[in-house]
Amino acid sequence: MYVTSVESIESVRTGHGNFMWVLLPEQIGVPNFVLRYFQVPPHGASGYGKHPYEHEIFVVTGQGVLKGRTLDGQPVEQAIRPGDAAFIAPNEEHQFRNEGDEPLGMVCVVPKGCE
Amino acid sequence: MYVTSVESIESVRTGHGNFMWVLLPEQIGVPNFVLRYFQVPPHGASGYGKHPYEHEIFVVTGQGVLKGRTLDGQPVEQAIRPGDAAFIAPNEEHQFRNEGDEPLGMVCVVPKGCE
Repeated sequence: MYVTSVESIESVRTGHGNFMWVLLPEQIGVPNFVLRYFQVPPHGASGYGKHPYEHEIFVVTGQGVLKGRTLDGQPVEQAIRPGDAAFIAPNEEHQFRNEGDEPLGMVCVVPKGCE
Repeated sequence: MYVTSVESIESVRTGHGNFMWVLLPEQIGVPNFVLRYFQVPPHGASGYGKHPYEHEIFVVTGQGVLKGRTLDGQPVEQAIRPGDAAFIAPNEEHQFRNEGDEPLGMVCVVPKGCE
């Protein structure tokens, strides 16, 4: 096993002023997927865009909005908070917005080799 | 996208008195991996055992111990707490023990089709 934490590794600053900790990266030998932790600062957001792989997320801290499309293609905005999980399909446009006063913190899992 | 929460779906009772919420299951069309939330009650534990697929976990609540082996095969016990992430390799024996007074809650991701 391999154990790490958001406190013991450096975060990466992403394009929109957010922070990403790549907690369980390819380099440790994960067979299938990579586990990261994302933090969107208060009133920040991720870019609105898409990529050819899925996100599976779990909200740990904060309050926000996930903008995307329903599984049958309709535009949707959904409030998210701790205890919520979301699946964002490959090639689905999406955006995370922090609409609260504390960081929006999320576990975000992606396939190995996608980024 | 598909959004759900630990409050809106039923948990499954697992063999050792723990609780599992299968938040992002195969049925919603996930291409590669399934995201679950696990809760080990105070002073409870999971079984000590192994399976042919990996776990990738992120601790959300509580305090516990992860018993397993290092990546080079040495027995190890490691304290875990919120903000920690762990990779448990396929076929590695492991156990989660809750050594605190609040539930040990963890996101636990496994490959699609493994269970």
